[in-house]
Amino acid sequence: MDEIKKELGQHYLVEFLGCDAQVLQYVKDIESAMLIAAEKSRATIVKSHFSQFEPQGVSGFIFIQESHFSIHTWPEYNYAAFDVLTCGEMSPEKAIESLKESLRAREARVRVFTRGF
Amino acid sequence: MDEIKKELGQHYLVEFLGCDAQVLQYVKDIESAMLIAAEKSRATIVKSHFSQFEPQGVSGFIFIQESHFSIHTWPEYNYAAFDVLTCGEMSPEKAIESLKESLRAREARVRVFTRGF
Repeated sequence: MDEIKKELGQHYLVEFLGCDAQVLQYVKDIESAMLIAAEKSRATIVKSHFSQFEPQGVSGFIFIQESHFSIHTWPEYNYAAFDVLTCGEMSPEKAIESLKESLRAREARVRVFTRGF
Repeated sequence: MDEIKKELGQHYLVEFLGCDAQVLQYVKDIESAMLIAAEKSRATIVKSHFSQFEPQGVSGFIFIQESHFSIHTWPEYNYAAFDVLTCGEMSPEKAIESLKESLRAREARVRVFTRGF
């Protein structure tokens, strides 16, 4: 694609590897981890929603004033896919650090992409 | 980051340029456009939520069985940031085509990234 000239935000795609499978299984743990991460990043939470998947795994989303956070977990692979789209004053790095700790991840692989036109 | 060896999904980041600013302004239009796009892509909708921003613009999210759709609109720039994370049988391209039409976008710039570990 063409170069982005008007930058409106940064999109972080994060792979959490080697997580604790127990933590990835249930909504209550993931919701709590995500809300703590959002707070630590100084995002302003507008609304959140989390869904339990069967037989295991969670999908979650937080609308923030600065855009969004989402997570999808695969306990069977000790893996979680996380993304943050940020268009304001906040620290995605703090959210990633906080989640890495909460999910007991061995590693966080981070890619950052500019959004805009 | 290291090469992704276990592929769990594809993450589409889409910039819609030259959209009709009127369409980008209100929840009702964006919610309708997003639900039609999800249907056309054959995603299975689990839950959706849309928020109106002041003075203008909309954020929206659809949980699908196959992961998620999100959108954030900037009517002042005739621009919308859209993403689809898909981990199942569905067609993100159909969703992009449908949204491009609904938002009356001049152009859709698409980047695709593999998610996994």
